[in-house]
Amino acid sequence: MRGVAVVGIGHSKFGRRTDVGVAELAFESVKRAMDDCGVDRKEIGSVTLGSAGGWYEEPLPAVLVNEYAGFEDVGTMRVEAACASGSAAVRSAYLSVASGEAEVAMAVGVEKMTEVDTLTSVELMGRSGSYLWEFENYGMTFPAYYALYAVAHMGRYGTTEEDMSRVAVKAHHYGAMNPLAQFQKEITLEKALSSQVVSWPLKLYDACPISDGSAAVVLASEDAARRLTDTPVWIRGIGFSSDSANMSRRSDYVGLRATADASRKAYAAAKIGPRDVDVATCHDCFTIAELMAYEDLGFCAKGEGPKLVRDGQTEVGGRIPVNLDGGLKAKGHPIGATGVSMVVEVSKQLRGEADRGRQAQIRNGVGLVHNVGGTGHYCYVTVLSRSR
Amino acid sequence: MRGVAVVGIGHSKFGRRTDVGVAELAFESVKRAMDDCGVDRKEIGSVTLGSAGGWYEEPLPAVLVNEYAGFEDVGTMRVEAACASGSAAVRSAYLSVASGEAEVAMAVGVEKMTEVDTLTSVELMGRSGSYLWEFENYGMTFPAYYALYAVAHMGRYGTTEEDMSRVAVKAHHYGAMNPLAQFQKEITLEKALSSQVVSWPLKLYDACPISDGSAAVVLASEDAARRLTDTPVWIRGIGFSSDSANMSRRSDYVGLRATADASRKAYAAAKIGPRDVDVATCHDCFTIAELMAYEDLGFCAKGEGPKLVRDGQTEVGGRIPVNLDGGLKAKGHPIGATGVSMVVEVSKQLRGEADRGRQAQIRNGVGLVHNVGGTGHYCYVTVLSRSR
Repeated sequence: MRGVAVVGIGHSKFGRRTDVGVAELAFESVKRAMDDCGVDRKEIGSVTLGSAGGWYEEPLPAVLVNEYAGFEDVGTMRVEAACASGSAAVRSAYLSVASGEAEVAMAVGVEKMTEVDTLTSVELMGRSGSYLWEFENYGMTFPAYYALYAVAHMGRYGTTEEDMSRVAVKAHHYGAMNPLAQFQKEITLEKALSSQVVSWPLKLYDACPISDGSAAVVLASEDAARRLTDTPVWIRGIGFSSDSANMSRRSDYVGLRATADASRKAYAAAKIGPRDVDVATCHDCFTIAELMAYEDLGFCAKGEGPKLVRDGQTEVGGRIPVNLDGGLKAKGHPIGATGVSMVVEVSKQLRGEADRGRQAQIRNGVGLVHNVGGTGHYCYVTVLSRSR
Repeated sequence: MRGVAVVGIGHSKFGRRTDVGVAELAFESVKRAMDDCGVDRKEIGSVTLGSAGGWYEEPLPAVLVNEYAGFEDVGTMRVEAACASGSAAVRSAYLSVASGEAEVAMAVGVEKMTEVDTLTSVELMGRSGSYLWEFENYGMTFPAYYALYAVAHMGRYGTTEEDMSRVAVKAHHYGAMNPLAQFQKEITLEKALSSQVVSWPLKLYDACPISDGSAAVVLASEDAARRLTDTPVWIRGIGFSSDSANMSRRSDYVGLRATADASRKAYAAAKIGPRDVDVATCHDCFTIAELMAYEDLGFCAKGEGPKLVRDGQTEVGGRIPVNLDGGLKAKGHPIGATGVSMVVEVSKQLRGEADRGRQAQIRNGVGLVHNVGGTGHYCYVTVLSRSR
């Protein structure tokens, strides 16, 4: 397999974006990613757009994004793996370069979700599973699915509501330092704990918001990377897996099998272990999801996720800083953009370019991106490194 | 780039399928493709599902298809490039094997469209373009887009309504020999010509139907292919391109630039020319589209497509037989399945396994798949060959 590097990164402001259409929103990141490495439009050999769709009007966003960006004769497609659509786009662009199809490929992630009212959003999110069987029959919504996991984790490992709220406080702490984040305001543990219950034990501050936003990366072969940048960030391995569509068919509710499996594959491909990781982004659609991710990714033993956050080990200066961009929780979660945004963030961290106060200490030069679709229906884990 | 072969092919009956859900429908092809080469479930390293979605309830079909097929721990995603979604899935599986990510990968295409009433279908198809600008502002439907091309082609090259109807008669002729086709009934030139006008000059028999159906292929590396089959069909090259989302920004209306560009790339990758092709499937969503494809793919000079069909050169025994499975017109067009179905058909032809009366004469052992998304918004051309 050929070497593939992230050579250009771009990221829009996340939040409520009524000022732009979907193609304009995508272009904000496309332009920044291209400017970041000075790549010429004509060098782009393939484009992949990550977008779940359904929240905005355009059903063929890929060709619209291409047209607006001036890529009218570049082949493209849209990929969807629920909330992991962005990582699926990164994988597609990666395979395009790794296989030799293209020397330079672009992955773009975009979603425009805030035009839809909250009730419709809850309906659309709830469909992310086995729609006909579990959503229609039992009326389970997305927070309820993750609440099942939270309750099981509390029951088996003594995890508390405070532990979950600590994840939210950390997210807002770093979101406040990230000018591209949707929420840039610190919160207290008390505020998180006393927020409105959505689906017990999950409260308002345990949940990520509905967001608009985009992110883009330019990926390049070794030859092209050498020409385009002095700070390549290499994709050392991508692991991906899936799990049952029906929640009722899961073997347990204290972790995501897809995460454990995808990370095992990614570590093997990258020839590293979890202890080598300097900095990570984890899929914290709900706070319980971040705690489970620590465990499923091997950052700690099963059941010890809460201890990691209690001890401050996932903050700057800790053993394994996680979501220093604010995470889905504070940065926002425009579905198709999220996975690409994570690669942008970890690349920034490995390049030492994160905003003041939220830059991790880089020792091994290794970062990890963890992106989940649905309730563990899909999982993509990407290992990035400063060295090839 | 590593060699990649089609080693297993599967295809469901196309038509109105009220007897199965989307996962069951996909499985009909998945099982046949796996049985075709005897591959074990555990050997499948990645799955890609081609499905445009929107016509059926499940928004996350990829994980459902995986669950039903027993691929619960295999990574998957859905890809969409409008009516070229199936080819986008084939390309993704191809890149997975070509890059070395997987030894064996599966591409599955599925769509369930007939549950939706005709008016909603017309609305959904019409959105395949620049929705907010052209569909909302001008109310252009899909037949109207292709009628623009038909009128331009008639004006510039003297193409007639009879020429287009001849394509339909040919499609029904071969569809009648294909037990998996939606329409298995011959029609006369007179019947086609006198059918109801949909958008002049296009009539009912110039248009492909709304369909349910699925198709699947198992792709393998050289080592795996040698082990799994005695009749590998090699993917010699895939070219893909796109064009403006807005029809008003096209340079002319007598051909699809995306087809010309994608085929140029595919021929270059495969190191062949159009004259080497023994048999092809062309994207005949409307009869005019097949005539333009002959020209854009280089099977004849620009403007001479009608002559090819008039002279019977695209029938069995002709210079370049096209759509011997009935094409989209008679076989049916379940959007996400179509591109995969085309690879199944051309593989069958190259293996000499097509049904009686519709087997092309194979000289060079080379076949071509042409799959268009939208009105030339996307185009994928895949060159297949009996030799590596």
